Amino acid sequence: MFSMYDVIAKKRDGGVLSEEEIRFLIDGYTAGDIPDYQIAAWLMAVYLRGMNDAETAALTDAMLHSGDIVDLSRFGHLSADKHSTGGVGDKTTFIVAPLAAVLGCKTAKMSGRGLGHTGGTIDKLEAIPGYRVTLTEAQFRTQVEEIGVSVIGATGDIAPADKLLYALRDVTATVDSLPLIASSIMSKKLAAGTASIVLDVTVGSGAFMKTVSDARALAQAMVDIGVHAGKNITAVLTDMDQPLGRTVGNALELEEAITFLRGDDTGLDDLREVSLTLAAHMAANVHGISPDDAYRQAYDAWRSGAAYEKFVEWITAQGGDRTWIEDFSTHAAASVQRTVCAVQDGFLVRADAEQIGLAAMQLGAGRRTKEDGIDMTAGIRLLRKVGEPVRRGDPLAVLYTADAHLADAAEARFLSAVTIGEVRPAPISHILGIVRGEEET
Amino acid sequence: MFSMYDVIAKKRDGGVLSEEEIRFLIDGYTAGDIPDYQIAAWLMAVYLRGMNDAETAALTDAMLHSGDIVDLSRFGHLSADKHSTGGVGDKTTFIVAPLAAVLGCKTAKMSGRGLGHTGGTIDKLEAIPGYRVTLTEAQFRTQVEEIGVSVIGATGDIAPADKLLYALRDVTATVDSLPLIASSIMSKKLAAGTASIVLDVTVGSGAFMKTVSDARALAQAMVDIGVHAGKNITAVLTDMDQPLGRTVGNALELEEAITFLRGDDTGLDDLREVSLTLAAHMAANVHGISPDDAYRQAYDAWRSGAAYEKFVEWITAQGGDRTWIEDFSTHAAASVQRTVCAVQDGFLVRADAEQIGLAAMQLGAGRRTKEDGIDMTAGIRLLRKVGEPVRRGDPLAVLYTADAHLADAAEARFLSAVTIGEVRPAPISHILGIVRGEEET
Repeated sequence: MFSMYDVIAKKRDGGVLSEEEIRFLIDGYTAGDIPDYQIAAWLMAVYLRGMNDAETAALTDAMLHSGDIVDLSRFGHLSADKHSTGGVGDKTTFIVAPLAAVLGCKTAKMSGRGLGHTGGTIDKLEAIPGYRVTLTEAQFRTQVEEIGVSVIGATGDIAPADKLLYALRDVTATVDSLPLIASSIMSKKLAAGTASIVLDVTVGSGAFMKTVSDARALAQAMVDIGVHAGKNITAVLTDMDQPLGRTVGNALELEEAITFLRGDDTGLDDLREVSLTLAAHMAANVHGISPDDAYRQAYDAWRSGAAYEKFVEWITAQGGDRTWIEDFSTHAAASVQRTVCAVQDGFLVRADAEQIGLAAMQLGAGRRTKEDGIDMTAGIRLLRKVGEPVRRGDPLAVLYTADAHLADAAEARFLSAVTIGEVRPAPISHILGIVRGEEET
Repeated sequence: MFSMYDVIAKKRDGGVLSEEEIRFLIDGYTAGDIPDYQIAAWLMAVYLRGMNDAETAALTDAMLHSGDIVDLSRFGHLSADKHSTGGVGDKTTFIVAPLAAVLGCKTAKMSGRGLGHTGGTIDKLEAIPGYRVTLTEAQFRTQVEEIGVSVIGATGDIAPADKLLYALRDVTATVDSLPLIASSIMSKKLAAGTASIVLDVTVGSGAFMKTVSDARALAQAMVDIGVHAGKNITAVLTDMDQPLGRTVGNALELEEAITFLRGDDTGLDDLREVSLTLAAHMAANVHGISPDDAYRQAYDAWRSGAAYEKFVEWITAQGGDRTWIEDFSTHAAASVQRTVCAVQDGFLVRADAEQIGLAAMQLGAGRRTKEDGIDMTAGIRLLRKVGEPVRRGDPLAVLYTADAHLADAAEARFLSAVTIGEVRPAPISHILGIVRGEEET
């Protein structure tokens, strides 16, 4: 029998915890036998002392087995999931999920609600009248079988230990630890049951990981866990120094994704490159083809309108209103629309994703606490992105909100988040690296 | 206004906390506004990142002011206290307190109960029938005024923040941190209100600090805090690699102290040197005389019997039974007395204080948990100490307990705690260093 005191002391002194010690800790915490304060001390010791690959794998496994594992075995190697480590303006799921389905992946995705800049994917989908975020596991499987894609809210029984641990990390300043982030994400992804996983690991001001080398380390840790668990897994490092695409908000992001799916990628190079690359790696993993071939297939599936048709099929299958998709003029509009203008000539050299995300939250697009509501119409439309020329007085962005006072505060924050310089910055790479599971042997 | 999250994150990243941040934390925790789990994460961050002198002083001050401060102002510079960082067989208070009183110190001491090898000083005093460990503050002051010495249990209002913090450290593996130990001890000592403080900082297997350099660092930290608070303060580093004196237990230790006070120091060189040195430094601080002069006065006060008379006066003033002091034949005896013998010829080269202390606890002399009772008659009498010659079959120790099964377990532990070697070890220094407050300018 282990004692939690000894487990804390061992990690405190830089020791390596055994699989049994980690299982004791997670099982005891989930059962309510180990108090928060002992786990909190252990979390800080992990934050400062780290964990090796075996410990991280054991923690993932213990959290994975704290709840249910979705049974997608009927789809064999075809079941596929995509997960982003988070960003601002991240609407890739709406594009990648139907694209991958067109490419033959059985895209069975469980997403979360969000605390932060905007709602999570599930919150955003609720902007579509009628969309059902809750299906039974049987309904979920049937829809994936029939049309190749479904996106639902995560059930309460997926990795409950991770939920408990995350809530505690959130209030003890222990979120930002590589082994804890990797095991948290991977325990949920493994519990979601797909044979193939593509991770979108974001990098930059709006991401957990601020540098490519930190992001690569996180990607490698997660890919190692996935390979160890027998998954076909790839991580794609993508830029999140400025928001992805040109909208931040719930309905705004869905509208942008729909516009793109219809074939219009004007000013959306980043959204196109990231979405097609993620879908291509999903197809490459599932079918064992080269990522380049898969990218060409993804491009065709987008240009041909097949992905848009699949999107409509998916959303309407889950009860979403077809008119809302097809006619944006039916959408509710924000009562306050504030245009923010450039105060000098030059080039946009910085558009800090985190600060712009916080401005969107101030406008009402995101929750500060679990109890907050979300204003589906609130958000920000970016009229200039980094590298583009501006003249004094040019509109830089439009802020959407229900209250002019909120617009005042958000405008000040937005202006502090952007910088106009005299020299045109170097072009930005949207894809910053690939970490493939196959290379891990 | 501060946030506890930010305070945790700052210490986690190695930052220096301000006085205001530390006061916010201690006040908030004492008031119940900051939960255990946030303090636990902070404690582990402090354990691994440390605190500088200013932070340690601020923590001490915040804990000191979380409760009452005893008012001993009527005694001016004459009020004096002595505190040990803990050991095995540590009965110096029974000797030092009356000695210092004879030397003109107003010895006003509040002591604790104990978790561990034996009871604390207050538990041990309860071995004397009738002794009252609880006095009102007015009664306490009157007794100190009239006879120069009183020892009572700490009141509930002394540094309550330290009590809360210590209980949490105890279950989160964060006890053994220099700034946390120093601030814990000093907050209680400063709240006890004496003008002069002598610290007995123990070193070795039976002490918190295992090496002289660690003990010197702790002593220096505590002396710095005391000087900063305007106290006349000295720390004495003493050996605790083997138990002090020849008894470990509650009534056994009192009997040994009384025997010594009556003038018999046979085999008690260590107890004599440590006790006289501590009393001398108390007198030296209070009267501004040299420690060497004060030592000579302490020696005379012991040899003349004045300290013994003061001991009897003190104990009987608090209701203790004079017959118990004067006639050991009236004492209750342990029903089981087990003699442990040497298994080979040679010299005793090791008598591990911690292990011998744990053996005494097994015999019933100490508490494992707060709920446990103490057997006042249980304990260990050491018939050989380190450096002394032994022959195979010689009795090494007598174990006293109420249960032969307990004796079996304790005997095995005792035998593993002692080593007999062929070479006589070098003589042991009982006093390993002095850190005086006056040198701190």
